[in-house]
Amino acid sequence: MEQLRLAVIAGDGIGPEVTLQARRAMRAALSDVELVETEYELGAAHYLETGEIVSDETLASLAQHDAILLGAVGGDPADPRLAGGIIERGLLLRLRFAFDHHVNLRPTKLHPKVASPLREPGEIDFVVVREGTEGPYVGNGGALRKGTAHEVANETSVNTAFGVERVVRFAFELAEQRRKHVTLVHKKNVLVHAGELWQRIVDSVAAEHPGVSVDYLHVDAATIFLVDRPSRFDVIVTDNLFGDILTDLAGAVGGGIGLAASGNLNPAGDFPSMFEPVHGSAPDIAGRGIADPTAAILSAALLLEHSGHPEAGKRIRDAVDADIDARDGANRTTSQIGDAIVASLTA
Amino acid sequence: MEQLRLAVIAGDGIGPEVTLQARRAMRAALSDVELVETEYELGAAHYLETGEIVSDETLASLAQHDAILLGAVGGDPADPRLAGGIIERGLLLRLRFAFDHHVNLRPTKLHPKVASPLREPGEIDFVVVREGTEGPYVGNGGALRKGTAHEVANETSVNTAFGVERVVRFAFELAEQRRKHVTLVHKKNVLVHAGELWQRIVDSVAAEHPGVSVDYLHVDAATIFLVDRPSRFDVIVTDNLFGDILTDLAGAVGGGIGLAASGNLNPAGDFPSMFEPVHGSAPDIAGRGIADPTAAILSAALLLEHSGHPEAGKRIRDAVDADIDARDGANRTTSQIGDAIVASLTA
Ligand SMILES: CC(C)[C@H](C(=O)O)[C@@H](O)C(=O)O
Ligand SMILES: CC(C)[C@H](C(=O)O)[C@@H](O)C(=O)O
Repeated sequence: MEQLRLAVIAGDGIGPEVTLQARRAMRAALSDVELVETEYELGAAHYLETGEIVSDETLASLAQHDAILLGAVGGDPADPRLAGGIIERGLLLRLRFAFDHHVNLRPTKLHPKVASPLREPGEIDFVVVREGTEGPYVGNGGALRKGTAHEVANETSVNTAFGVERVVRFAFELAEQRRKHVTLVHKKNVLVHAGELWQRIVDSVAAEHPGVSVDYLHVDAATIFLVDRPSRFDVIVTDNLFGDILTDLAGAVGGGIGLAASGNLNPAGDFPSMFEPVHGSAPDIAGRGIADPTAAILSAALLLEHSGHPEAGKRIRDAVDADIDARDGANRTTSQIGDAIVASLTA
Repeated sequence: MEQLRLAVIAGDGIGPEVTLQARRAMRAALSDVELVETEYELGAAHYLETGEIVSDETLASLAQHDAILLGAVGGDPADPRLAGGIIERGLLLRLRFAFDHHVNLRPTKLHPKVASPLREPGEIDFVVVREGTEGPYVGNGGALRKGTAHEVANETSVNTAFGVERVVRFAFELAEQRRKHVTLVHKKNVLVHAGELWQRIVDSVAAEHPGVSVDYLHVDAATIFLVDRPSRFDVIVTDNLFGDILTDLAGAVGGGIGLAASGNLNPAGDFPSMFEPVHGSAPDIAGRGIADPTAAILSAALLLEHSGHPEAGKRIRDAVDADIDARDGANRTTSQIGDAIVASLTA
């Protein structure tokens, strides 16, 4: 029987609770495929216990899988031992960079039964293609005269033609499968060097896709459209930091980041892609069994779609849609939502 | 009679239309003060005609004023002669940097009669204190192997203890006059050097203001709160780029950037402060007399408040409030709105 080798990093906080349900949904959705799951204990709690964030051996072992499912990593933000984003950078960004996850795919679709914070949301159905391995995330910064009145702290955003082109190509190919519109979001009137590179590459890739219309928005203006007229968006392509900001806003506008799934893709398949909810570890509600597992379950659907099992992914999506359709406003526990989705998958 | 020496840069697009009304409102609001206005022709149109953006002589002449009122600058974004943000950087940012406008003050207050795009906006009344002379706006970038497949384009954000501390102090002093809460917004888990500097300075200034409560949000999470619970904010202090993004979103959430005013402050008074609506030159509606001048008029109110004429500023604010109260949904022209506000100022 065909195998799908899955690495699971349940992580911290609500991570284990929501990945549990995502794994149940995957098992229920896959037929004629053996799901071989390996669990990795990684995250803030693991680091505080062992002093290790992620070893080279663990990276090499993770690399042996077809895909990675990640719950959430990160501990108590007030814990000084976790300051400086040590887990976020040391683990999450480490994996994205080590496995060359250059496409960070973040779809937003407002379900008709889900309440948006917007008064008139309209049709919300777009995808942000966020670059995942460059920009201000590269870690090129430093501080001079640190801690003195004369400190200078710099952060450098690095953008390459190679890195921008591959993600722009991905965005146009995705748009060809969708409503055929790409919006570049940047701040090219201020960040002129990076912005000119992004715009030039978008222009040249656009020339190869005459059926796709293209426009440009400054990142500040894009936030306005996300609340005033989100229906204008189909595919947004943008850099790592702007994509980070826009996708949290998109998640909120699309009914809450409890529903927002994401894929960190290595489209060439050199390394496993990694799928995770956009939300974090939410230490405030962890352990109470009340986290909504939907974002994790939809991340599992994305995982299946990008690992050669699109029908199984679609089945999960349909089950989630049915579950949302049936919502009556009553509070449900994490496992009740999981149960309902699994029941509809096995019905 | 006391004088207020005002430099007016009406600028491009709707800039002249809206500043005209702002000037009428100022004249009507000021009593016992002679408003001496000098007009400066600057902007995209002026550049395309003359080839000059702003000369050192013009800067020196502008510096002789008590304050600057700016409409909007920037031409047709599709005009290749204006590519690379040449006007935005060469004029707007040039003025902000030359006159050391390190506090970019951007209040958002949702008027009860104004429709927010949010379903349940709650009480929206906060101020963003955006740093204005540092961060990714400093213009420290470049491109290597430009135009080739091996291009590398860098942008460096520069942050100094001196620059951060003065704006953080301003934010805390402002919070003391308001609801006594400051939120630092940054992305310190990724931009660790700049983020640590900001957080350390906020912590140390907070220690001098025991009556002010403080919290921290990553910029991505801040966008979620701006749509899900904007009432949580009182004073936000943040860097130049995050402030740019958050204030457009804030403007939208607060009823539209047709109402959003801003001040580029030099609190020490070494150079004149500059006041401008957050919106741009809106070439699509320019010349039709339909732009809402309210943001420009509220910018004039801010100008008066920061130039030693707080009562006159308050009078304008009250007149704007009354005008908004009286709105019945009918479309009004730019000058009709100006007329109504001037009428209530002179009633
Ligand atoms: C935790 C953090 C480093 C991460 C990011 O900024 O990419 C998160 O916000 C996300 O969007 O996945
Ligand atoms: C025009 C542009 C350079 C400017 C900025 O980014 O500061 C504008 O967006 C603003 O917010 O005033």
